[in-house]
Amino acid sequence: MMNKFKSIAERMIGAALEAVDPYRLIKDQITVENDKLTVRDREVDLGKFKNIYVVGAGKASAPMAVALEELLLPKITDGVVVVKYGHSKKTKKIKIVEAGHPIPDKNSLLGTKKILELIDRAGQNDLVFVLLSGGGSALLEMLPGEIELNDLENLNNALLSSGASIDEINTVRKHVSLVKGGQLLSRTNSATVITLILSDVISDPLESIASGPTAPDPTTFSQALSILQKYDLLSKTAPSILNRIKQGIEGKIKETPDENDKIFRRAQNIILGNNLLALKKAREIAVQAGFKSLILTDRINGEVREIAKVLAAVFESSVKNKEPLGSPGCFLLGGEPTVTIKGAGLGGRNQEMVLAMLLYLKNVKQPFYFCSVGTDGTDGPTDAAGAWIDENSFRKTLELNLDPAAFLDENDSYHFFKQTNQHIKTGPTGTNVMDLMIFLF
Amino acid sequence: MMNKFKSIAERMIGAALEAVDPYRLIKDQITVENDKLTVRDREVDLGKFKNIYVVGAGKASAPMAVALEELLLPKITDGVVVVKYGHSKKTKKIKIVEAGHPIPDKNSLLGTKKILELIDRAGQNDLVFVLLSGGGSALLEMLPGEIELNDLENLNNALLSSGASIDEINTVRKHVSLVKGGQLLSRTNSATVITLILSDVISDPLESIASGPTAPDPTTFSQALSILQKYDLLSKTAPSILNRIKQGIEGKIKETPDENDKIFRRAQNIILGNNLLALKKAREIAVQAGFKSLILTDRINGEVREIAKVLAAVFESSVKNKEPLGSPGCFLLGGEPTVTIKGAGLGGRNQEMVLAMLLYLKNVKQPFYFCSVGTDGTDGPTDAAGAWIDENSFRKTLELNLDPAAFLDENDSYHFFKQTNQHIKTGPTGTNVMDLMIFLF
Repeated sequence: MMNKFKSIAERMIGAALEAVDPYRLIKDQITVENDKLTVRDREVDLGKFKNIYVVGAGKASAPMAVALEELLLPKITDGVVVVKYGHSKKTKKIKIVEAGHPIPDKNSLLGTKKILELIDRAGQNDLVFVLLSGGGSALLEMLPGEIELNDLENLNNALLSSGASIDEINTVRKHVSLVKGGQLLSRTNSATVITLILSDVISDPLESIASGPTAPDPTTFSQALSILQKYDLLSKTAPSILNRIKQGIEGKIKETPDENDKIFRRAQNIILGNNLLALKKAREIAVQAGFKSLILTDRINGEVREIAKVLAAVFESSVKNKEPLGSPGCFLLGGEPTVTIKGAGLGGRNQEMVLAMLLYLKNVKQPFYFCSVGTDGTDGPTDAAGAWIDENSFRKTLELNLDPAAFLDENDSYHFFKQTNQHIKTGPTGTNVMDLMIFLF
Repeated sequence: MMNKFKSIAERMIGAALEAVDPYRLIKDQITVENDKLTVRDREVDLGKFKNIYVVGAGKASAPMAVALEELLLPKITDGVVVVKYGHSKKTKKIKIVEAGHPIPDKNSLLGTKKILELIDRAGQNDLVFVLLSGGGSALLEMLPGEIELNDLENLNNALLSSGASIDEINTVRKHVSLVKGGQLLSRTNSATVITLILSDVISDPLESIASGPTAPDPTTFSQALSILQKYDLLSKTAPSILNRIKQGIEGKIKETPDENDKIFRRAQNIILGNNLLALKKAREIAVQAGFKSLILTDRINGEVREIAKVLAAVFESSVKNKEPLGSPGCFLLGGEPTVTIKGAGLGGRNQEMVLAMLLYLKNVKQPFYFCSVGTDGTDGPTDAAGAWIDENSFRKTLELNLDPAAFLDENDSYHFFKQTNQHIKTGPTGTNVMDLMIFLF
């Protein structure tokens, strides 16, 4: 049974990754026929536009640009997308700029400047595609003249170590930037804008993915100031930044556009791919293979070890009680857990999830298979995407004289699964919709 | 919709509690006809026994005794059960002894002495019923002559504050006792023994419920010593206890019987009621009311707030994606979470679970209902069994100027729900199969 489960899971992962491949997302979901472009329930008459511009930012934006060129090349006037170093693809018209991630660098600003120069030219008769994916927040950045890149980096570091939530951090960042929080859309004059998004954020909040350059921003300059006050960061923040926020509060600088702003009437933000799409494709494979299958959630979050306790309780209940599912059954979960690192080992949240499950499921003797993988192919700072266990793994651990609890305490899941030969390695996938977890039994 | 959900949930809880009522468990699952007793797939010819004895211990053992008398009274020779103070019921032949819980007292020893005197008389031609339920561990206790009650209490306190797991604590306790870990069964000579159990422990481990007086014990004197060493408790342990463990290791005292012991051939341990039975009865009501329903697990465990994060992720996925269920849908969960108390407030794990969910589900606007209740009717040191929330609760909280996060930080869930009038109060139910959680949407 084990090998059957393993090979089914591998096919499930393969199908999931293919479903959210950025090139495939564009090619599969957008059709162009007789000058009509169709994406989801929207039909766009390309004939009525004078120019089509393509801009974007994100780790997956280069293959998205390639796919869009294949569909639209003769009609594209010009384009620029900013990608992470090493993530370029060969394009025909759309220029690719490589830049810094996760910390924005001079190339981020340079690439973004080119984007802004391009969209500044757009007008009522033009169509602008914006291609967004994970990492866009660092890659797409333009600062007001008085703020230095260094000021931003210091702000980021101060916020990240302050205990502020990611939403709070983004609120401040949006009010230091000239493009985040809907401000890129503001720069497109009266053009029609279609934003195509590969989401790497739980529940696909438009205002968070790549910091929402074409999405309404519910946050304000006043909130940004409150957050700096709340975490006692006023004295650590560059005067140029504080001054900008102050001017914003006084109304001397325009607030980021909120949902009532009429600019959003000419814009559409479309999530082409996300964690749920990957889960659904993986489920198709399991169902075809005869497994009753449940997607438990696409938004798992929290501390890995605590999540593992709950998942183990659901899995054990299934194995022992046939509730919620009997065998052959399959659970799928997606999302982005976190690991609070206390040890000095090597690992990632996926491998650590599997290691925690090894301990919690050690008494399950019935055949099962569990794996967790990062869809980008990189789990933490390792060359593995994740790891897997089955009903023989705990016994094997004892035979190898390994103490899984000790490896877990050291956050050393990578070396544990290296010794048991239970890594899952996909190599870099070119996409990212967070993590996938699969349980077969 | 809200009132509909609430009233369905209340009916579900009512049905669940009725299903695990200890009196009902015996009356519903045991039949006596023409001198044949049937329980589950076992048929017992009562005609071949000279005496039938009934013993037992636990908070629910008195109503179990009443029910067994109603079925068997003329055939019962004698009986003694030990219950918690205030938990007596009127019986005809079986004597009820009230004793201390959760800390064993002199009456625990006295009641157990009466039980031992009774079963010492049992022999090959006799049938002994043992009625067990939660609390039996404290209520059923007999110490070797040289160990004082005070020594045991000091040991318990030292173990409880040492960080030892409940399994480790029980390993030591079993090797200090003369009745735990299968030893009560040893005292029944060659009688036939049927143990009827209401389980209040996750996954119903026979060796843990009431410390398994008629179940095989996988643990040993050596392990008991290792645990005392591991937590550095040797110097805090009474010499009488250390001496007993030493004698056990040296083989001067008989080890507790393990699964290979032939005494278990004449014994049967039957779980009459548990958390899963309650969940299944509750589900029947939901299904009748038209809800697609899933029992996610009967063994939830871990820290309340972390569990709530995972449950919120599953519930939100259902509300937003219709995965794993669309509306009208129902999730049921059972088990026993824990709360690490940091604040000075009043509450219990059920109310705290609901309070945490209030925060995690605050953005869900679709109609829903969530509740968590302790099946014994007492959540922590409060007069509430649990609490409930719906899609209006967060708004109501704001209107009342209450800060749910602050109440949560103070572990003050009782006062929070007192102000919002969202307690669930059942009064003491006379049963205990841990906690039930219900989500309707």
